[in-house]
Amino acid sequence: MLHDNFPPGSVWLVGAGPGDPELLTRKAERLIATADVVFHDALVGAGVLDLIPAHAERISVGKRSGRHSKDQATIDALIVAAAKAGQRVVRLKGGDPAVFGRTAEEVAACTAAGVRVRICPGVTAASAATAAAGLSLTLRDGARQLTFVTAHARTGVPLDLDWQALASHATTLAIYMGRAAAGMVAQQLMARGRNPDTPVLVVVNASLPNERLIRGKLSSLAFLVETVGHQDPTILIVGEAVRPGDGRDGVSLNRQLPQRQPVAS
Amino acid sequence: MLHDNFPPGSVWLVGAGPGDPELLTRKAERLIATADVVFHDALVGAGVLDLIPAHAERISVGKRSGRHSKDQATIDALIVAAAKAGQRVVRLKGGDPAVFGRTAEEVAACTAAGVRVRICPGVTAASAATAAAGLSLTLRDGARQLTFVTAHARTGVPLDLDWQALASHATTLAIYMGRAAAGMVAQQLMARGRNPDTPVLVVVNASLPNERLIRGKLSSLAFLVETVGHQDPTILIVGEAVRPGDGRDGVSLNRQLPQRQPVAS
Repeated sequence: MLHDNFPPGSVWLVGAGPGDPELLTRKAERLIATADVVFHDALVGAGVLDLIPAHAERISVGKRSGRHSKDQATIDALIVAAAKAGQRVVRLKGGDPAVFGRTAEEVAACTAAGVRVRICPGVTAASAATAAAGLSLTLRDGARQLTFVTAHARTGVPLDLDWQALASHATTLAIYMGRAAAGMVAQQLMARGRNPDTPVLVVVNASLPNERLIRGKLSSLAFLVETVGHQDPTILIVGEAVRPGDGRDGVSLNRQLPQRQPVAS
Repeated sequence: MLHDNFPPGSVWLVGAGPGDPELLTRKAERLIATADVVFHDALVGAGVLDLIPAHAERISVGKRSGRHSKDQATIDALIVAAAKAGQRVVRLKGGDPAVFGRTAEEVAACTAAGVRVRICPGVTAASAATAAAGLSLTLRDGARQLTFVTAHARTGVPLDLDWQALASHATTLAIYMGRAAAGMVAQQLMARGRNPDTPVLVVVNASLPNERLIRGKLSSLAFLVETVGHQDPTILIVGEAVRPGDGRDGVSLNRQLPQRQPVAS
């Protein structure tokens, strides 16, 4: 298809998925293999970075919670300059570019400079987090709405979210970059009527070898994240969809050893 | 990793992504290549089905809006029976298994039967839809919440959604299977204060060769879907994030011809 082309002097914003290189799309793999230069976030998994060809330049424009090594305007300028120099530019973003990825800014910068830009979607962290737990983000009964928010605000600016909407009991709430704000999130939701016993699932380093699943209730969310490191990507999932129980207890699922089933006669 | 194993007699619920076989993950590709039998939805793209190896059985358990060829209990029973017979079972689901995929039911059925089950996440339709349009689902200013709902209810049951929460102006709303309910969705949102001029993007057959992008305003949503076929997977996206304009007008982006940029000195 036309928009799959990758001519010199153009930019692809590429979703790297949650970290496991196997959760990269086939398209992302092809684009990375074709790139002359790759600008990547700190959150992009090491296994994904290993797929960057040796001849390609690899530039970290890493952002992590509380530490922005390059500001957005600088990143925009770097991407545009590389494309203007005739390079095939991959901008590799953790997860999916459409979800809390500053994609609109980078598209706008490219377009304003007359640089062709396209987007390759990826697997977002919430999908990988529930997959690891053997769970769904939605339930046909009781969790028919799914909301993603980020709890990572500009420094010094309070989180400006519509808490009443988020407290809706029929909603599964996935909070990206939620470690630091976990206690505040729980307080806000409970103050607006969300049941303190609502199940929560905390997933740290989703899809990576050091992945951790932590389970509990909304009322204890602040304590659940206490052992999570500042630099570890963390997603908080709140709602009935992550209730442990018959067939939906991911922790026990992941501990279950693979076994051969006898062939039925 | 241990949970990536695929022993005989086990089940993987696999996200097939939005339709383009290039938007399958590398892991999904590997699992499909290893399967003895693949149970797939009608929404799984033909190009993805072409990846099923010749030796594997391919069984459609297709569901489309308004037509369920097999009910969920039958699908659950088929999957379990195949695993119990010692087969490596892939259950291939359109998009991401965690998003409106009936995944909880299938996990519960497997677990109750003592069948090992794992989940491979996929790219969800909303991500592919905005990628096609050169847009993001979220904006740092003005679209910090993202909500997915499905407008496909049980036959005869009215849509039971928290409309007040969905009408929040700071929210990007992605409505899966939204064609038939488009007019009702717009009415409900406007009745609760959502601005009739809010931008909407309708994406039909996201990521497929016959993909269509239709733009408009919330007040005209019912008309925008009039030319969309009943069988075409359709996602409606409502919010400031899909406002056309400088650097964010996906339609003009996709019409822009690829061009070589001069190499800067």
